[in-house]
Amino acid sequence: MNREELFANICKKRSMLCVGLDVDCNKLPAHLKPLGTFGSITDFNKAIVDATAEHCVAYKPNLAFYEAYGLEGMRALDSTVAYIKDKYPDIFLIADAKRGDIGNTAKMYAKSFFETMDFDAVTVAPYMGADSVTPFLEYKGKWAIVLALTSNPSAYQFQSAVKDGKPLYRAVMEEMMEIGTPDNMMFVVGATKADKLKELRSFCPDNFFLVPGVGAQGGSAEEVMANGSNDHGGLLINSSRGILYASGGEDFAAAAGIAAANTASL
Amino acid sequence: MNREELFANICKKRSMLCVGLDVDCNKLPAHLKPLGTFGSITDFNKAIVDATAEHCVAYKPNLAFYEAYGLEGMRALDSTVAYIKDKYPDIFLIADAKRGDIGNTAKMYAKSFFETMDFDAVTVAPYMGADSVTPFLEYKGKWAIVLALTSNPSAYQFQSAVKDGKPLYRAVMEEMMEIGTPDNMMFVVGATKADKLKELRSFCPDNFFLVPGVGAQGGSAEEVMANGSNDHGGLLINSSRGILYASGGEDFAAAAGIAAANTASL
Repeated sequence: MNREELFANICKKRSMLCVGLDVDCNKLPAHLKPLGTFGSITDFNKAIVDATAEHCVAYKPNLAFYEAYGLEGMRALDSTVAYIKDKYPDIFLIADAKRGDIGNTAKMYAKSFFETMDFDAVTVAPYMGADSVTPFLEYKGKWAIVLALTSNPSAYQFQSAVKDGKPLYRAVMEEMMEIGTPDNMMFVVGATKADKLKELRSFCPDNFFLVPGVGAQGGSAEEVMANGSNDHGGLLINSSRGILYASGGEDFAAAAGIAAANTASL
Repeated sequence: MNREELFANICKKRSMLCVGLDVDCNKLPAHLKPLGTFGSITDFNKAIVDATAEHCVAYKPNLAFYEAYGLEGMRALDSTVAYIKDKYPDIFLIADAKRGDIGNTAKMYAKSFFETMDFDAVTVAPYMGADSVTPFLEYKGKWAIVLALTSNPSAYQFQSAVKDGKPLYRAVMEEMMEIGTPDNMMFVVGATKADKLKELRSFCPDNFFLVPGVGAQGGSAEEVMANGSNDHGGLLINSSRGILYASGGEDFAAAAGIAAANTASL
């Protein structure tokens, strides 16, 4: 999916919401559990997607939550991706995987997410530098979403190191902008750092920011939109737990739909 | 596996070799290809393991090379891990996955590699700081192997940023040594940076270093051993392509055995 299509969908749905599909089997509604690992994850995801698709522009399965359940988990991921791609082809699909490795390995990760699976984007970690990111940029219509300033408590521990007089997260963004474009690269910027968004926009006006940390992690979608949007939308604001587990009962999907309608809408 | 057991095995086998199981289906010997993805990867790995186990102390499957082949690839990984654990229980088994995410996600990755699969160790990326590593340290007898100074061409791009007057790779190691011990934490230090090993040993005398980059990437195992070993061995020296593809013919396993015997032996 290209940037114009993503922006058109934001305008059409009047939403910048990305729903994080981080399915923890321990948190599934009790009535789904008899379906087993594959069945319960798949049915849960399909119901969440059907209830939220009109209110969001992206889904972001977090790979850890599928890998943790082994082959059954990975089958559930495949099935979820196929369902979304088939039924909601206008949705932007992000693999939250935070991969980062030497060039020939990064090439295999790109193959995993862009060929073997049909994701539009994958999150990547910048610690190993440009050659660990480049392979993800070689697919037309696909995106690398590079970690810049993350949402977790220890984010600043290393991301505030200094390179050329600048904080590392800024050096990462500026140097990555030399190999990527606003049409194939986004950055992860935590909503828990909403005050930073204006600063980042000052030197990175055009790239989309994927913003996790709204809801369970404490960030405010309104503050993020006020500080981080641009004339092409410019934001995908992720909420996971606040939507998936809005209700733990049989009404989980309806509750998720209401939560989605109230998060990151324009 | 604990540090004493690993060291005992290094002494017994007189080897610091870790064989990287990065199976690229395009490079498999022609006679294996009719077996299909699962069959050819599994048979290749088993033959490589049987031919090299007496010459090495560790195996390191690289997750990207299994994920790239989807569910068949992941089945082949499971099967390879089970084969090694069953037949060669004294071998140290590393998931080269370079994961790194917020705490509740890192916990799921730790579950993936230490519970769902039975790896002894997993490589992790430090960009997101301590709370992305801690969950991997909460399993007795399991290890986090943290990226410090990697082997790829763009390693220094961000790893040389400065924190508290020190290069980032050193800050990462020193601060990680505050949350981990030589009994549950190792560091990745590229063999292509063999001259750096003495410097790193000066402030990190006890932790094992996992050293990739020997062979195809240009590093020398002898130089690594001269500069990086300590009184508990202290090194796992990885070679992947140089061993796996020592021959592309029907004699691939025998050739791998010879290559393994000649790499990182004491």
